[in-house]
Amino acid sequence: MSGTNTNNTISRRDLLAMIGKVAGGSAMYGAMHTLGFAEESSYSGPIRLDGAPKGTTVLILGAGIAGLVAALELRNAGYNVKVLEYNNRAGGRAWTIRGGDEYTELGGAKQKCEFDKGLYFNPGPWRIPTHHYGILDYARRLKVPLEPFIQTNYNALIHSENAFGGKPQRYRHVRADYAGHVTELLSKAVNKGSLDDSVSKEDKEMLLESLREWGALDKDSRYLASVATSRRRGFEVPMAGGLAPDPVPSKPISLTDILQSGVWQALSQGEEQDHHANIFQPVGGMDGIAQALYRQVARLVKFNAKVTKIDQGPRGVTVTYTEGGTVQQAKADWCVCTIPLSILSQMEITVSQPMQEAIQAIPYEAAVKVGLQFKRRFWEQDEQIYGGISYTSTPLRLISYPSTDYGKPGKGVLLGCYLFGPNAYEVTAMSPRERINMAVHYGAKLHPQYPKEFDNGMSVGWHRVPFINGCFANYPKGMREKHYKTLCSIDGRIVLAGEHASRLFAWQEGAVLSALDAIKRLHAKIKATV
Amino acid sequence: MSGTNTNNTISRRDLLAMIGKVAGGSAMYGAMHTLGFAEESSYSGPIRLDGAPKGTTVLILGAGIAGLVAALELRNAGYNVKVLEYNNRAGGRAWTIRGGDEYTELGGAKQKCEFDKGLYFNPGPWRIPTHHYGILDYARRLKVPLEPFIQTNYNALIHSENAFGGKPQRYRHVRADYAGHVTELLSKAVNKGSLDDSVSKEDKEMLLESLREWGALDKDSRYLASVATSRRRGFEVPMAGGLAPDPVPSKPISLTDILQSGVWQALSQGEEQDHHANIFQPVGGMDGIAQALYRQVARLVKFNAKVTKIDQGPRGVTVTYTEGGTVQQAKADWCVCTIPLSILSQMEITVSQPMQEAIQAIPYEAAVKVGLQFKRRFWEQDEQIYGGISYTSTPLRLISYPSTDYGKPGKGVLLGCYLFGPNAYEVTAMSPRERINMAVHYGAKLHPQYPKEFDNGMSVGWHRVPFINGCFANYPKGMREKHYKTLCSIDGRIVLAGEHASRLFAWQEGAVLSALDAIKRLHAKIKATV
Repeated sequence: MSGTNTNNTISRRDLLAMIGKVAGGSAMYGAMHTLGFAEESSYSGPIRLDGAPKGTTVLILGAGIAGLVAALELRNAGYNVKVLEYNNRAGGRAWTIRGGDEYTELGGAKQKCEFDKGLYFNPGPWRIPTHHYGILDYARRLKVPLEPFIQTNYNALIHSENAFGGKPQRYRHVRADYAGHVTELLSKAVNKGSLDDSVSKEDKEMLLESLREWGALDKDSRYLASVATSRRRGFEVPMAGGLAPDPVPSKPISLTDILQSGVWQALSQGEEQDHHANIFQPVGGMDGIAQALYRQVARLVKFNAKVTKIDQGPRGVTVTYTEGGTVQQAKADWCVCTIPLSILSQMEITVSQPMQEAIQAIPYEAAVKVGLQFKRRFWEQDEQIYGGISYTSTPLRLISYPSTDYGKPGKGVLLGCYLFGPNAYEVTAMSPRERINMAVHYGAKLHPQYPKEFDNGMSVGWHRVPFINGCFANYPKGMREKHYKTLCSIDGRIVLAGEHASRLFAWQEGAVLSALDAIKRLHAKIKATV
Repeated sequence: MSGTNTNNTISRRDLLAMIGKVAGGSAMYGAMHTLGFAEESSYSGPIRLDGAPKGTTVLILGAGIAGLVAALELRNAGYNVKVLEYNNRAGGRAWTIRGGDEYTELGGAKQKCEFDKGLYFNPGPWRIPTHHYGILDYARRLKVPLEPFIQTNYNALIHSENAFGGKPQRYRHVRADYAGHVTELLSKAVNKGSLDDSVSKEDKEMLLESLREWGALDKDSRYLASVATSRRRGFEVPMAGGLAPDPVPSKPISLTDILQSGVWQALSQGEEQDHHANIFQPVGGMDGIAQALYRQVARLVKFNAKVTKIDQGPRGVTVTYTEGGTVQQAKADWCVCTIPLSILSQMEITVSQPMQEAIQAIPYEAAVKVGLQFKRRFWEQDEQIYGGISYTSTPLRLISYPSTDYGKPGKGVLLGCYLFGPNAYEVTAMSPRERINMAVHYGAKLHPQYPKEFDNGMSVGWHRVPFINGCFANYPKGMREKHYKTLCSIDGRIVLAGEHASRLFAWQEGAVLSALDAIKRLHAKIKATV
């Protein structure tokens, strides 16, 4: 499906509609996962900004990843920096919820997290691809320890409500069998001579040999129940020691069953570069990098400052904000605004008409995540699933198991769902309790232990998150061409930054690269202006 | 190639010969990796042995994984247990070499390890598959912390000296391009109707759709340079933030180049169940589990005891051993012998003729590993390879990067090679220094930083390891049928255990399952005998 998605976001809706048509509505879960999250980084090492004019002030709006990076690097360059942040914490969406944390969403529903000590849930970003050099370099420079995030787990599940009697299948079974059947088919076509116009004589034998290896085919290029195929998908009766019973090969799933069930849609998740092993998470929670950045610039950051107006004139920028009910103003020579467009579009800002239009135009994707604490790590103890992701045709879309504390006794927290699109709007409209109930209800279809082992949960519907009212900038078809360059350009004394001002939208790396690009250009303009 | 390897070990040599013929000698590196290491576990929870006859003594020979498991469980069952161990440490092949360690091999060459504190190298086992429930359960019960071992790293390299001008290719490039070309070919055949006898009308459209997804094909089922394919293999100019240059897709490698280079042979490593993500290593070194087992039974173990003779009569077993030059004897009612066959075959043992023949018959595979310390972790810093394995057509076969301490400054130790077969014999014959030089010489073909950054190394050629004279029991064709049941049967008052008495040879899990099966049967026999 990536094949049809040749432009950044253009065909999300069309594509989903098409897949829905071909594979039934439930088939969309696989598709949605791959769209729009597959970008690389252009980071090439720490930024060097020299010769900041003495006494020049820069006001930074927002202490998320973009704001913190801008604050750190502009401060290091010699600027006089201040940061205003709406929340009472740094990090923005780079947010980790732990036991004792309280969270009140729009609408007033308040949740208090009851997770055990050491357990957490990342409602926002949760993984760092290896090719996201910028954010990884900040982790390195700030000594934030990283551990592997397990994306693909061959022992995890692929679940379709409408197939296999609702019984989840092991990823390893679907994967081995799909590869086996497909390579067997291709071998057949090659042996028939059907592809003689495409495959040279020299390549033919090597192609057949490589297909036997790739698909675990036998010497006649067949994919059958055997020791060889069981070494891929697992045995029915496993290899053992001493005089234990002889091993018995397992029986593959038929190609028809794989195709018609739609479970094949979950197979390519780990093939996207953004998910290529080895991928990372900070030890202890995704907010680790943001918090390390914050500690570098803590003295510059004012929390609980709600920006309401951004004004600029030929000599500087004036920002109006409320703090504890009091209206205040901050002035600076220049401004880096990292406020999400979903919020920025609701306030007065003195910028050009095209910039105004860009700020107003770009919609934010809906998303919901639920973190569930269970009384024990049954997914490891009962099912040998250590980290990784199970996919489901239910509205949950996926369940992700913790990529840490493997084998530990005691409670565990997993990601109970990660919804986008229409489902996410619907679920955001529910109460936090209802969202959690939903996650437990559908999760039980994959793991019957759910109802018995469920302990407590936390839920975040991003359109109800006060500081953003959405999850990430989701450019519809044609909108990037129309507005992106305007949005990123310096408008007088103001420059925007954040994932919305990057091509790596929804990623921390987008925030980093956007901030670095913005301050590099701002610095050049400041030096040219003075 | 797994497809042709339908029996446990039968066709190793034939198969390698065949592959060598088809793909050129250098193509063997991929093949060797997949052979014979793909077994599962039958472990179903902690063993329970009740009612050991009071005062019954069991002598255990060897304090490797099998001996330690037998000692722990028989002691827990109430037996009076003693363990004799040749080395001055427990663990056997479950061995981790750290700075300060000394090792003298057969022939007298002595090495002193100069690794930095915290760095190590596992000359023996180095990874634990998720389905090896036995060894994992001991890790859990003994609270040995585990961390993911990265098997497949999409950013690692596949290197053939005879292709691409010797330039290593990124795994992600080879993988995406092979899958893309192959699915394009199959789509072509399907669209031509060449497979109408194999694929039903209902399946046809779904098959084509799934191939577009699996291979990242475009809507016309072609695999071309595009945003979609670059999202799999990586971009030429990556996605960036702000006004950085627009992304540029990367250009796929042709199918011919992939096929003729043989690099496709390294693609399926992670598809073997033994290598299925998530796979583990103990934090701090593979000896962690053995050492934890040892701490449970330390009082029972006598080190530096070299067994020279094993005698049994109708009432007991007498074992002769030397300790500090003195000949001594130990007596017990029963004996669990975990001494490798390569050593056991060199001593007198009172067992039946078929058992004698079994002990003498089974050859041990040759293997060499070299650990290399470098002045910095250039594979991470320069090449963004965090853990995982690169494959090479050079004699090294593979290079494996540490799956721990990601992004840390300071020195690092990687596995410089892992040789089997003829190459391993040849390299074992070298001096330790020469082996290390060899690893640096060939490694430089993958990583030009090698000569400059190399610091020091350690090498283990298993046929020169005094306590085993080989790496693991490698049953040639037909030999398992002939000798395995005899080898595992209780012979009077003696039972053998170890990976050689399992179908999971060369794995710690084989040692665990063999020991558990042996003591279960021994316990039953003891109870029946009393």
